[in-house]
Amino acid sequence: MSARLDSTGLPLRPDLRGRTAYGAPQLDVPVRLNTNESSYALPPAVAAAVTEAVAAVVPGLNRYPDRDFAALRDALAAWLVRSTGVAVAPDEVWAANGSNEVLQHLLQAFGGPGRTALGFTPAYSMHPIISASTGTSWVDGTRPGSPGDPFDLTADSAAEQARRVDPDVVFLCSPNNPTGTALDLDVVRAVHEAAPHAVVVVDEAYAEFARPGTPSAVTQLDGRVRLVVTRTMSKAFAFAGARLGYLAADAAVTAALRLVRLPYHLSSLTQAAAVAALAHADELLSTVEALKEQRDRVVAGTAALGLRPVPSDANFVLVGGFADSGAAFEALLAHGVLVRDVGLPGYLRMTAGTPAETDALLAALGDVLGDVRGAVVGGQDAPAGGGCLATRVER
Amino acid sequence: MSARLDSTGLPLRPDLRGRTAYGAPQLDVPVRLNTNESSYALPPAVAAAVTEAVAAVVPGLNRYPDRDFAALRDALAAWLVRSTGVAVAPDEVWAANGSNEVLQHLLQAFGGPGRTALGFTPAYSMHPIISASTGTSWVDGTRPGSPGDPFDLTADSAAEQARRVDPDVVFLCSPNNPTGTALDLDVVRAVHEAAPHAVVVVDEAYAEFARPGTPSAVTQLDGRVRLVVTRTMSKAFAFAGARLGYLAADAAVTAALRLVRLPYHLSSLTQAAAVAALAHADELLSTVEALKEQRDRVVAGTAALGLRPVPSDANFVLVGGFADSGAAFEALLAHGVLVRDVGLPGYLRMTAGTPAETDALLAALGDVLGDVRGAVVGGQDAPAGGGCLATRVER
Repeated sequence: MSARLDSTGLPLRPDLRGRTAYGAPQLDVPVRLNTNESSYALPPAVAAAVTEAVAAVVPGLNRYPDRDFAALRDALAAWLVRSTGVAVAPDEVWAANGSNEVLQHLLQAFGGPGRTALGFTPAYSMHPIISASTGTSWVDGTRPGSPGDPFDLTADSAAEQARRVDPDVVFLCSPNNPTGTALDLDVVRAVHEAAPHAVVVVDEAYAEFARPGTPSAVTQLDGRVRLVVTRTMSKAFAFAGARLGYLAADAAVTAALRLVRLPYHLSSLTQAAAVAALAHADELLSTVEALKEQRDRVVAGTAALGLRPVPSDANFVLVGGFADSGAAFEALLAHGVLVRDVGLPGYLRMTAGTPAETDALLAALGDVLGDVRGAVVGGQDAPAGGGCLATRVER
Repeated sequence: MSARLDSTGLPLRPDLRGRTAYGAPQLDVPVRLNTNESSYALPPAVAAAVTEAVAAVVPGLNRYPDRDFAALRDALAAWLVRSTGVAVAPDEVWAANGSNEVLQHLLQAFGGPGRTALGFTPAYSMHPIISASTGTSWVDGTRPGSPGDPFDLTADSAAEQARRVDPDVVFLCSPNNPTGTALDLDVVRAVHEAAPHAVVVVDEAYAEFARPGTPSAVTQLDGRVRLVVTRTMSKAFAFAGARLGYLAADAAVTAALRLVRLPYHLSSLTQAAAVAALAHADELLSTVEALKEQRDRVVAGTAALGLRPVPSDANFVLVGGFADSGAAFEALLAHGVLVRDVGLPGYLRMTAGTPAETDALLAALGDVLGDVRGAVVGGQDAPAGGGCLATRVER
């Protein structure tokens, strides 16, 4: 067989050979706290409105959808205006099938072969993956940490790294996944200034869960054509199954994304469902406060167990202090609780769910730590910062 | 401003600068025959079943969809078995948001920087566009034509070109868009053999409309790991708005595509709607015979007007013989009929719709040709084959 073909006889790209597909386990477990979904089903009134909106477009599915998703852009812009107080126009909004596809569009337009993206790891693990799949070189920046937060990223450190790399795309993540903390806006401003050739993407997938007084980077868009803020309806909006990510940016950015999107990328079903959901945003977001309470219970409860939770502005908590986080992951799974091993030795990420799910999580953790304390609760946290990406295994 | 930034101050990739977004005009015109949609709305019973299936998943949209879309793969495999008689298993099926995304996944896995795709133009214009957007070099093969079909592609010619280019990906299009004719399977077999390092993609978006006795390339999959047959629910299934493309291939191919797809690329809404539609495939496809009759009416009617229709196995007809196809496009539009200017001088592409739409099309053509016969009906067709791609403008 020719060396151009892999062992199955296919011309698979060499960089893909031997790889396994990305994705968290899809296990049928009583308590699933591994993908930061909302544990709350759609309120019946909202479900009825979404169903009605979808039913109205079904007979006409013989026609292609509106390629420019005008009604959805109007609804997203109106929501951003209402929730952030910033004047965002419909042509300053873009959307796609999940924020992953939004990020892919950004990298297709502004990254690609010969270009470089910078992120500050640990952060959202799809940032380097989508960079690689679009041929964009990835630079693994670091988070130096501080006494109160082992993954803290300061404006000075971020700016220094951005200046040194001079990237084409920078990813900031606020609140950061998987560590949970939001960024001060001075980090955003400093990176934007220090990387004068870069599109600076602030990934705000979890912004709605931030602690009081955490402003959105949407407030920084005015006058910064290279700044982009991405959002999703998968988390606080409890709409993960509908796959709707979006962004706010200068109209020149959305015009660029129109050049790289596949025609008709958003189905008529998606557009109708999302518009209906946005019309009921307040009801959909009504569980946010309850989830924040559970998030704070996870922080307090794990600390009480002798673990070391990282401060969180999200609907999850990264918990350190495990001597063997892999063993703890398996032990929790045996107790019917699925959390996320994000590949950071000593840490596990736990989604905040219903009060009953928090009860189950904390009880399982208590059992696990009681059973095998020596093996499971450890001393030193793993060092924070970069360098872990190449070897980390997520599950 | 730095040369790394474009005139708007963004680091837009140089190859995208000055480009305009791809896509047919979305005009509010009485007779839209430009994007090969079905003119028939979903039958009420099918619309009800699709709505019911979607309604069932809406309350649970807080959870991510099944990343492996198992139920949909089962339904697509069952449909392929039933419609082609070939034993296709669920793990030999892949799906995405429209066949464009299926093609993008194929190019991400098997094309990309340093690799080459070959197509025989004129063919589906997204093949070179998606190749470019994934960094795949594109080679514009030719269709030598024959006395009965100016765009005929023979096995000998295709194999010779494939041997010369030695590509990593080959696109065949059967029935071919925009020319309309299906390929003999000996072309598929010859290209597969002549391009020993290539994934050979047979794009069968319009297969359901082929004239009797036209076999599907699905019959050729057994024993050919590098052969892929793509299909769509956008045309014969009258489901364009739902965005569902799929393919059949060896399980090693679908395993490779799983490495490049974005996680959760198919929403719960899409999966539920498509499964329900496939359960009503016969009803959805019930208009295919009617559309083929209208297709044959367009062929006969345009020939009677002195134009030169290309033989068609699709739900559209490429009609040659216009002295100025651009002027004819505008004149038809002024008569309320939107057709497709695919950038082939002398030709326009016309979708087969309802009997009333065919009446309107032929009446408008009669008026247009009567009005300005000298300017609109011409003598020689433009030469067939490649070389036209770089300069063609679609609308």
